[in-house]
Amino acid sequence: MRMVDLIEKKRDGLELSTEEVNYFIKGYTEGSIPDYQVSAIMMAIYFNGMTERERADLTMAMVESGDQIDLSEIEGVKVDKHSTGGVGDTTTLVLGPLVAAVDVPVAKMSGRGLGHTGGTIDKLESVSGFHVEIENAEFIDLVNKNKIAVIGQSGNLTPADKKLYALRDVTATVNSIPLIASSIMSKKIAAGADAIVLDVKTGAGAFMKTLDDSRELAKAMVRIGNNVGRKTMAVISDMSQPLGFAIGNALEVKEAIDTLRGEGPKDLTELCLTLGSHMVYVSGKASSLAEARAMLENAIKDGSALEKMKQFLSSQGGDGSIVDDLSKLPQAKYIFELEAEEDGYVSEIIADQVGTAAMLLGAGRATKESEIDLAVGILLRKKIGDQVKKGESLATIHSNFEDIAQVKQKLTQSIKLSETKPETPTLIHEEITE
Amino acid sequence: MRMVDLIEKKRDGLELSTEEVNYFIKGYTEGSIPDYQVSAIMMAIYFNGMTERERADLTMAMVESGDQIDLSEIEGVKVDKHSTGGVGDTTTLVLGPLVAAVDVPVAKMSGRGLGHTGGTIDKLESVSGFHVEIENAEFIDLVNKNKIAVIGQSGNLTPADKKLYALRDVTATVNSIPLIASSIMSKKIAAGADAIVLDVKTGAGAFMKTLDDSRELAKAMVRIGNNVGRKTMAVISDMSQPLGFAIGNALEVKEAIDTLRGEGPKDLTELCLTLGSHMVYVSGKASSLAEARAMLENAIKDGSALEKMKQFLSSQGGDGSIVDDLSKLPQAKYIFELEAEEDGYVSEIIADQVGTAAMLLGAGRATKESEIDLAVGILLRKKIGDQVKKGESLATIHSNFEDIAQVKQKLTQSIKLSETKPETPTLIHEEITE
Repeated sequence: MRMVDLIEKKRDGLELSTEEVNYFIKGYTEGSIPDYQVSAIMMAIYFNGMTERERADLTMAMVESGDQIDLSEIEGVKVDKHSTGGVGDTTTLVLGPLVAAVDVPVAKMSGRGLGHTGGTIDKLESVSGFHVEIENAEFIDLVNKNKIAVIGQSGNLTPADKKLYALRDVTATVNSIPLIASSIMSKKIAAGADAIVLDVKTGAGAFMKTLDDSRELAKAMVRIGNNVGRKTMAVISDMSQPLGFAIGNALEVKEAIDTLRGEGPKDLTELCLTLGSHMVYVSGKASSLAEARAMLENAIKDGSALEKMKQFLSSQGGDGSIVDDLSKLPQAKYIFELEAEEDGYVSEIIADQVGTAAMLLGAGRATKESEIDLAVGILLRKKIGDQVKKGESLATIHSNFEDIAQVKQKLTQSIKLSETKPETPTLIHEEITE
Repeated sequence: MRMVDLIEKKRDGLELSTEEVNYFIKGYTEGSIPDYQVSAIMMAIYFNGMTERERADLTMAMVESGDQIDLSEIEGVKVDKHSTGGVGDTTTLVLGPLVAAVDVPVAKMSGRGLGHTGGTIDKLESVSGFHVEIENAEFIDLVNKNKIAVIGQSGNLTPADKKLYALRDVTATVNSIPLIASSIMSKKIAAGADAIVLDVKTGAGAFMKTLDDSRELAKAMVRIGNNVGRKTMAVISDMSQPLGFAIGNALEVKEAIDTLRGEGPKDLTELCLTLGSHMVYVSGKASSLAEARAMLENAIKDGSALEKMKQFLSSQGGDGSIVDDLSKLPQAKYIFELEAEEDGYVSEIIADQVGTAAMLLGAGRATKESEIDLAVGILLRKKIGDQVKKGESLATIHSNFEDIAQVKQKLTQSIKLSETKPETPTLIHEEITE
């Protein structure tokens, strides 16, 4: 088999066989197929796409390129949730304890990552003492006992995907639905998921700006998952503005706890109930989505979801009492309000720019070496459609430095007012199961 | 400027600026832009093409990537001829002396190359003593004195093109008209041509199999040439069967001498007169194509073309008397005839396979290290449309080994007979001047 012939096939719009996909991914991972041939085939795929069969093969070839997490010792169906990323997305922090409270096992491998705020692990480290440096055996014991645990990423998961992604990034071949879809799915599958619930964000603050593109990506991932034997579904949710109110690490932990107590932002709560229902339903713990939702609503109402959060944090060394006393979370030195300059309605909140403002405060990492300030961030006071009076606060800024001129400027630019009341964005656009 | 942005532009069908083309070619030549980014942009160009301006810019960027031959000390318009390659193409050996005989300067830089037979230099070395290892100053003196000289390739010509071609070869991006056209034109321009006459072959034995593709390539090259100030035209000529009768080095020299004497194959003679007329016309030595053609026909008739060949060979150390005594050329030990197995008409001569048969005899190089046997080769006795009787010779095989079973088999497969007389292929399909 010669790589140049495979490039030619994709260039001419033909389908690669399973053997050919495996040859190419194995050769690339091992280094016997050079970058320059792989970037050429990536560009050919950018133009000609991949068939459903090729996408499934590519995903599994990347899964098999490295270690795979074995969660078989955990009882029950291991459902993983994945979000395509946005600003102020606190769903993971809420969903873990929420579905665990109704006995769906959550065995989460998580990372730190770059972005406007830290990753799930960074956020959880706002809780004094909490850590994810636990052994595999302890991780599995914890999930079996508590139904929830989080472990840091370890092992050599999907090295082919890592290598491919780095190459695509510098060869203008990132924006290809089959390549994005197989990249995401390979990581979830290698991490041991039996079933996957996807939260595909759409809108200005999301990677996919249009509903059409988001739907295409959602369908691509759902089909890959189902074609390789992992029950998969996707929710397309709004990211035309940040989700919830909090953008920041400790701020999001607080917001998650509020939500588990039934006092969270409406949009965050609704999205968590929707995603959670699918997770519970797919795990077999409920016989319908309606039943699953009722179970979750009840777990919030009767305090068991909040109790699960406390147990989860304590089990991994964290100070569980934080759940009852949120002032124990890291606090910023300075609190500023961003005041509205005129009367009106909030018509637009540019999520990316709000995220950038949070980064300027130190909430996120620009490079792997950056230090994160867990206490700082932004708390939106208004969302799209809300009425606001001149001088009223649009957002609260939690900062550890006094001069926040740049942050304020960025935020002022990103929150726009109109004279007439705009339409409130739809939160859940579509649910895709096949 | 970042290469990834340039890739993205081409991917999205946008036009690169002159500065961007220069940045990319300079960076690639110097090694600051890696192969994997270049193969990605090559594939994007494969799909989205290049505008006329981009093609001209790419060509000149490749010309400027290395040395350029300075022929300014040679009087007159330096016209170069280029053929896109085929089997048994003896035009260069004929055209040089032919147009030099009417005072058009021929300053030819030539190579050895891989293929069914050797390159122009290999062929000329069939003439005892002839050599091309001459100094630049001598080369220029010879052209000024005799109007013709051939020198071996030296210097670092179009290194960007060499690097690009090697990369395209292993990334399935060879078959792109803008890339092929700029590659060919950059080499001609770097070699110092003021004007270029192109012989674009079409048909089964050519790189471009269809007339449409050949026309597109011809037009692309003609436009590049004219856009960068080199008067350029192209003839699209037939390569559905080998040109002339001879495929082999000394055999082609003999055929060239026959043609200069007015006794050559009809098709070779006609193509040389057509190409030669354009060369003479573009050089300004004739005021019309008809006048140019009459001058060349006369040079054959009055013996001055043949005399020019003799002078050319002697001036570079060759035995000029060969022109009068062709038996002084290298002779093969064995001569075999390929006899027709039935009555009929020659309906097809698969040029590629005849070429392969010549290679099997040792006439060409498979690798740079291969030794060429100058004496051997194939002399076709019949061309498409010719009637043949059972037992009559279809081709004469000149070999230095006795067992030619494989060669005969290859040839038998490549020369096909039919019961009815087929149409004779058109020799000159089109002449393209803009």
